[in-house]
Amino acid sequence: MRAVDIITKKRSGAELSREELDSIISGYVAGSIPDYQVSALLMAIFFRGMTPRETADLTDLMLRSGDTMDLSGIPGPFVDKHSTGGVGDKVSIPLAPMVAACGARVPMMSGRALGHTGGTLDKLESIPGYVATLDQERFREGLLAEGYAMTGQTARVVPADKKLYALRDVTGTVESVPLITASILSKKVAEGADSLVFDVKCGPGAFMKTPEQARALAHSLVDTGTAMGRRIIAVITDMSEPLGSTVGNFFEIEESLDCLEGHGSADLMEVTYRLGGWMLVVSGLAASITEGEAACRQAVHSGKAMDLFLANVRRQGGDVARMLALRGKWRSKYREELRAPRDGWIASIDAWAVGLAGVHLGVGRNTTADSVHPEVGFIFEKKRGDRVKAGDLVATIYGKDEASLGPAMALVRPALRISDGRPEALRLILEEISAS
Amino acid sequence: MRAVDIITKKRSGAELSREELDSIISGYVAGSIPDYQVSALLMAIFFRGMTPRETADLTDLMLRSGDTMDLSGIPGPFVDKHSTGGVGDKVSIPLAPMVAACGARVPMMSGRALGHTGGTLDKLESIPGYVATLDQERFREGLLAEGYAMTGQTARVVPADKKLYALRDVTGTVESVPLITASILSKKVAEGADSLVFDVKCGPGAFMKTPEQARALAHSLVDTGTAMGRRIIAVITDMSEPLGSTVGNFFEIEESLDCLEGHGSADLMEVTYRLGGWMLVVSGLAASITEGEAACRQAVHSGKAMDLFLANVRRQGGDVARMLALRGKWRSKYREELRAPRDGWIASIDAWAVGLAGVHLGVGRNTTADSVHPEVGFIFEKKRGDRVKAGDLVATIYGKDEASLGPAMALVRPALRISDGRPEALRLILEEISAS
Repeated sequence: MRAVDIITKKRSGAELSREELDSIISGYVAGSIPDYQVSALLMAIFFRGMTPRETADLTDLMLRSGDTMDLSGIPGPFVDKHSTGGVGDKVSIPLAPMVAACGARVPMMSGRALGHTGGTLDKLESIPGYVATLDQERFREGLLAEGYAMTGQTARVVPADKKLYALRDVTGTVESVPLITASILSKKVAEGADSLVFDVKCGPGAFMKTPEQARALAHSLVDTGTAMGRRIIAVITDMSEPLGSTVGNFFEIEESLDCLEGHGSADLMEVTYRLGGWMLVVSGLAASITEGEAACRQAVHSGKAMDLFLANVRRQGGDVARMLALRGKWRSKYREELRAPRDGWIASIDAWAVGLAGVHLGVGRNTTADSVHPEVGFIFEKKRGDRVKAGDLVATIYGKDEASLGPAMALVRPALRISDGRPEALRLILEEISAS
Repeated sequence: MRAVDIITKKRSGAELSREELDSIISGYVAGSIPDYQVSALLMAIFFRGMTPRETADLTDLMLRSGDTMDLSGIPGPFVDKHSTGGVGDKVSIPLAPMVAACGARVPMMSGRALGHTGGTLDKLESIPGYVATLDQERFREGLLAEGYAMTGQTARVVPADKKLYALRDVTGTVESVPLITASILSKKVAEGADSLVFDVKCGPGAFMKTPEQARALAHSLVDTGTAMGRRIIAVITDMSEPLGSTVGNFFEIEESLDCLEGHGSADLMEVTYRLGGWMLVVSGLAASITEGEAACRQAVHSGKAMDLFLANVRRQGGDVARMLALRGKWRSKYREELRAPRDGWIASIDAWAVGLAGVHLGVGRNTTADSVHPEVGFIFEKKRGDRVKAGDLVATIYGKDEASLGPAMALVRPALRISDGRPEALRLILEEISAS
């Protein structure tokens, strides 16, 4: 089975067999198939797509290229949430203890900031002492004790995805629904969850810019995951505006504490309860989304979710006292103010521009080698739909140094649009997709 | 200008600028752009195509990646013919001296056999002593003396094409009209011809299987070459049957001698005169195809074409006396006969199967490292349209060894189709395309 024949077959629009996909994936991981053949195949897949069967086989083969998490001996149900990445999206941090408080186990593997999107691991590590990468034994301990634990992917989880993703990134083959599906699902299945909720972000601040793109990915994730025996729901949520009232690393930890106290900003609370509710539904702990959401609210109001969060911070090495002492105070001395240029309503604050500005400020990173800063980012006083007078403070912007503020402000100033009339209310939950 | 952005631009269907193409080609030749990015771009080009402007720029950039032939001080006009490759296609060998006899200069650079197609250089080198690769000085001497010379491409002519073709060959990106156009034209322009005739072969024995594919390539060659200031005609010719009555290396030299004596098989004479006639038209030496063909016939009948051929053989080191002494006698001792299985007419002898069988026999090669043999191949006694009785000899087949005959016969036996009625006459010249 020659690689060139497999490329030509896909190029012509035919369906590849599991054996053909296997020879490519295993050959690529082993180094016997060169990257120039794989990149040509990836581009052919970009144009020709993959059938549900091909996507499921690719996901399974990638999964089998490495280790999977051993959760044996820990009682389930195991459920996780994955977001396709947005700006201000700190949902995982309050969500995991909230759902754990309702009786599920959440074996959560998260990523780091890259480009305009933030990373849950970077946010958690802004808590003094917090260690966001655990070995399997410590991960299992956390899951048993608090019902959840937070870690990153080790090099041995889905090595095929690491190699493929690095290649896709430099060959213009990232934006392919079946390739995105296999990349996301292989990692989520490897971590051991048997039910999953996907938060497919949609809008200028997301990878999927249009509802059509988001819907295509949501259906592919649900169909492929279902074919692999997982219970799946995909929720398409808005990412035209930053989520919540902060963008930053420690700033978003502060906002997560607000959320766990039940008084986070309305958009953050809505998305977190909705995703939590669905996690309880797919894991069989709630009979309906209404029941699931109610259970999540109760976990917050009872303080149980906050208790589990603080216990997790302690377990993973974080200094809870210092975190609480720094809350509301840990701010870079390099700051600028974004003020309303005129009277009116805030029609939008473009999430994409805010995300890119965050990279300048030190929230995110352009390359995996860049470091991030805890005490920088955005604190919004006003959001979309708020009425403002000329000169009102809309956001305070904190940078890693003086030089970072100018480029960030240059991106953010035109991202703030003021309208004469009140804008329509933002629909946060755009669509919910389950197995057909 | 990042390579990934150029790939993504082409992937989205946009037109690349000359600067963008230049950064890819020069970066690839210099080694600063890796092959995995180039193969992804080639696959995107396969799907998105290229505009005439992009194809012309790509051709010109490839041309400039290496040396061009210095023909200064030699009077023109310079004209060449290029065939896209077929089975039994020895046309270049009698054509070059025939057109030179009419006053044109033919700076002919040819290729070697690969896969099912033969190679002019391999055929010429079957003449004892003949050297088919000349340095520039010796090439110029031949052009001045006989009006033509035969050589292969040196490593310094269009190095971008050598690198790109090797990559296309293993990444499923050979069959792209703009990429084929740039590959062919860059080499032909580099050799210094200012007018060109393309023989675009069409049929099962050619790379272009359908008239649509052949027409697309013919138009692309004509349009791109014209945009580069060359006078171009493309002739689409049939390649469903092998051309002429022999397939082999020295066998085709023998048939070229027949052709230069004016008694080659009818199909070979027709195609050779037609292509020669057009070469005289595009180089300005004939006012019409009728006049051009007549001049070619005259060059054969006067013996001038044969004189120039024999002078070329001597100049390039060939032993003319030995060549003539071996004519009709140099046959491998390993032979088989292909006989008509029943009474009827020969409806077809599939060129593709004959070409593949030729690789087994030692006519052609599977990889560039294989060697070829002079005294092997096919000598046809009957061709399409001939009436046969059961048991009549259709062809004698000569192999490099005993073992080669079985696989060759297994391919050729089903390639011979006998019909009850006389088949329609084969149209050899399918279409002629000039600048619009």
